[in-house]
Amino acid sequence: MRLYEIAELLDGELHGPNDLEIQGVSKIDEAGTGDISFISNPKYRKFLSQTKASAVILNKNSEPTDLPHIFVDDAYVGFVLLLKAFSPKAHDYIRGISERADVHHSTQVGENVHIGPFTYIGPDVTIGKNTIIYPGSVILKKVSIGEKCLIYPNVSIREECEIGNRVIIQNGAVVGSDGFGFAPKGKEYIKIPQLGKVIVEDDVEVGANVTIDRATLGATIIKKGTKLDNLVQIAHNVVVGENSVVAAQSGIAGSSKIGQHAVIGGQVGVSGHITLGDNVTVAAQSGISKSVEDGMVLFGTPALPLTRQKRIDVSLRHLPELVKKINRLEKELEGLKERDGEDNT
Amino acid sequence: MRLYEIAELLDGELHGPNDLEIQGVSKIDEAGTGDISFISNPKYRKFLSQTKASAVILNKNSEPTDLPHIFVDDAYVGFVLLLKAFSPKAHDYIRGISERADVHHSTQVGENVHIGPFTYIGPDVTIGKNTIIYPGSVILKKVSIGEKCLIYPNVSIREECEIGNRVIIQNGAVVGSDGFGFAPKGKEYIKIPQLGKVIVEDDVEVGANVTIDRATLGATIIKKGTKLDNLVQIAHNVVVGENSVVAAQSGIAGSSKIGQHAVIGGQVGVSGHITLGDNVTVAAQSGISKSVEDGMVLFGTPALPLTRQKRIDVSLRHLPELVKKINRLEKELEGLKERDGEDNT
Amino acid sequence: MRLYEIAELLDGELHGPNDLEIQGVSKIDEAGTGDISFISNPKYRKFLSQTKASAVILNKNSEPTDLPHIFVDDAYVGFVLLLKAFSPKAHDYIRGISERADVHHSTQVGENVHIGPFTYIGPDVTIGKNTIIYPGSVILKKVSIGEKCLIYPNVSIREECEIGNRVIIQNGAVVGSDGFGFAPKGKEYIKIPQLGKVIVEDDVEVGANVTIDRATLGATIIKKGTKLDNLVQIAHNVVVGENSVVAAQSGIAGSSKIGQHAVIGGQVGVSGHITLGDNVTVAAQSGISKSVEDGMVLFGTPALPLTRQKRIDVSLRHLPELVKKINRLEKELEGLKERDGEDNT
Repeated sequence: MRLYEIAELLDGELHGPNDLEIQGVSKIDEAGTGDISFISNPKYRKFLSQTKASAVILNKNSEPTDLPHIFVDDAYVGFVLLLKAFSPKAHDYIRGISERADVHHSTQVGENVHIGPFTYIGPDVTIGKNTIIYPGSVILKKVSIGEKCLIYPNVSIREECEIGNRVIIQNGAVVGSDGFGFAPKGKEYIKIPQLGKVIVEDDVEVGANVTIDRATLGATIIKKGTKLDNLVQIAHNVVVGENSVVAAQSGIAGSSKIGQHAVIGGQVGVSGHITLGDNVTVAAQSGISKSVEDGMVLFGTPALPLTRQKRIDVSLRHLPELVKKINRLEKELEGLKERDGEDNT
Repeated sequence: MRLYEIAELLDGELHGPNDLEIQGVSKIDEAGTGDISFISNPKYRKFLSQTKASAVILNKNSEPTDLPHIFVDDAYVGFVLLLKAFSPKAHDYIRGISERADVHHSTQVGENVHIGPFTYIGPDVTIGKNTIIYPGSVILKKVSIGEKCLIYPNVSIREECEIGNRVIIQNGAVVGSDGFGFAPKGKEYIKIPQLGKVIVEDDVEVGANVTIDRATLGATIIKKGTKLDNLVQIAHNVVVGENSVVAAQSGIAGSSKIGQHAVIGGQVGVSGHITLGDNVTVAAQSGISKSVEDGMVLFGTPALPLTRQKRIDVSLRHLPELVKKINRLEKELEGLKERDGEDNT
Repeated sequence: MRLYEIAELLDGELHGPNDLEIQGVSKIDEAGTGDISFISNPKYRKFLSQTKASAVILNKNSEPTDLPHIFVDDAYVGFVLLLKAFSPKAHDYIRGISERADVHHSTQVGENVHIGPFTYIGPDVTIGKNTIIYPGSVILKKVSIGEKCLIYPNVSIREECEIGNRVIIQNGAVVGSDGFGFAPKGKEYIKIPQLGKVIVEDDVEVGANVTIDRATLGATIIKKGTKLDNLVQIAHNVVVGENSVVAAQSGIAGSSKIGQHAVIGGQVGVSGHITLGDNVTVAAQSGISKSVEDGMVLFGTPALPLTRQKRIDVSLRHLPELVKKINRLEKELEGLKERDGEDNT
């Protein structure tokens, strides 16, 4: 790619030779000749004097440099877009619909859909154009999958679930397993049929080995643009709002609602039947057992506002000394009382 | 289904037209014409006046209503049974033994067993009648599976494991992986062969992407009627008693025993080589590192009785103020001591 | 196996009949006639008088017994080696390359490689000799797998990842899923392409349903001899040092480095971009949010040195009583101050 093409792609301002050939994208301290790199955080500017990069992307208000450079609105976003442009088309060997796939005759497959070997597609499934399904995935009856989706190997999508457009589902993820619902009957449990479905909206990413349970009735919903990291558990009837991120190994219990633009750290637990507002941030390993208003930042189990929890943690770390101090104060007070008693006798 | 048929099914007392046609089952606040609904919790009775449901199931001691209704012993259990009766037979497209499955000639398959494509069944496996195995599952050598089981896609059952009757194993679950056993030898570890197996008894449900390790010697056992939620980890030689429930992402470490009718919340950790008695309840995210007697209700890490832990949590929440108070008391005491000293000079 | 053969295998000193036939290996309290057992922990010596074992392995400095016995350097290691020697060859029914596997013509397969049905092997993959790949696994483009590896059913290895020799990957594990990297752009997130790979070095074991994300650039690395238990999450660009063990359901966030010979308990969380030194031990359910020096033993969230954390936990357990005591002291002090005031009037 020529430097002017990159400038056009990023809608940036080029300072350097139009025709300079760029072969790759790399971090500033790892770049070699032919690479383009970027400076977003000013503390990395020191690497500019020693980098082997042939060109660099800079934030538009930053100082220029002797190296060929392109000013853009956001150098980091520019870097990401270039990574995309330079990333090899890894999917080109999954071509057409494999004869070793088992695709039900009633399946409606859009143009340019690719389905790998040993993939099962059940009856009445619809798959939108340009979607790729890797080997070993299983898509059950009446599922709908949108356009430009990427379904990695060994994914399961259970009956009647709906997947939007440009959704990425990573290896081993399960969409639409039965919710964990049982009614006690004497000492035993009887299974409550889980008759609902899962709706995964556009631009969602589902991490590897994630589990998303279908609703008892109605739908479990992952809204537009939300990203779930590996091994996350979403229980039945949960709704996760738009553009939220949930880090690895977190779990959201049944019927809870998460607002838009939440940021949920790893290994967090959210109890069932509660609501987290919009723009809520939850630190890793926290446990949320009550509903939370918009914009709260929480930490701990049970979770408290982050700054409050941190103050408590500081106090807690000195608790053994506090106990000693109290015991000393108690003795001193005892001494004073005795002498006070003596004074008054 | 006619209303009198429903009354018969539930062994209930019908107050309303025998022949009323019911088409579906729904919650009281979501029901439409033709649906039957239920009231179990009295606080939902307010919806009776405005529901569109055509009939309703009520607990037998509760007040009647103008709507056609059926009195039953337990309205909620009745609702669940109706959900089952009305749920579509989702499995009817997995019919017979697929030519695209690979079933070893030594496998003993009962009547009316259905095996989907791309399923591998190893030598000397036995499968009881009316069991359904979805596409993409792998059943290794000498496994036995009982009657009326439901094995969802991409499940793995390793060699020699035993699965009872009416067991449900959800997508991606692994039964019989090697236990995590290594002997230190210098700075390295040598693998301890895991020669035991897993026994999953009748009426157990295993959630999606659950892992149950085989025993080193002997068996890891999930007893009759127990339900494991998604992403639960059961280590080697664990025994989980009858009719227990373990919520998502909890882990039971090696050789621990859980009693009957335990209720274990999500993301709980149970240390190895301990015993939890019968009827133990553990709140979500707790860590249990010591054996626990029958009937205990625990919370926290390390776990304490729930009411005790809650009192501690309340105190903890005010710890920074407590520290301030103590510092104030210390100063005041210092002042008193000085004046006391002055008094005595 | 004759007793003298066992003595030779273990390089031990035999006291008993050379030709005694041993049929199995068992624990001292479970052994039957024909079994060999072991005593490593002296507290199990009491079982020697009542065991049905035909022979026993003892540590070389321990007391002899009437039973035929073999003295070895480490009786437990000897027991493990015998378990290996006696364990049935479970893999013998996965023979050759199944016609029902889909192996790309460009794949380079070493001698004596076995690949089960419904396994997909993409272009330009190399597989070293004596490796076994069970049914239902998916190995994508340009992956390299070393010699004597064991890949269990339904494993996914994504493009370009490198697996060393003698690596065991258990069922459902995912190696090389995309790292969780997104750049905020307005209210949405754009995906940061994950262009790196995963390197799994020699003698590593990867547990069932583990997820190991590929690096953004460069490599996520699991070094030689390290063992990961089930459901562990390793994020992008993490490095886990040699001969470390990570117990079930723990997660290591992006770009963190773990040293050699770490012992990390279950359900532990390690924050991103930190470094744990060599020989670090972390108790189960801890949360590590700061870098840690060599040899530290940590517990809690946020984690503290184990002995410190235990003292804090003891104090914490009595916090409600401490609060009461402080309130009592406050009152007494108040009383003293009043009387002191009276004295001084």
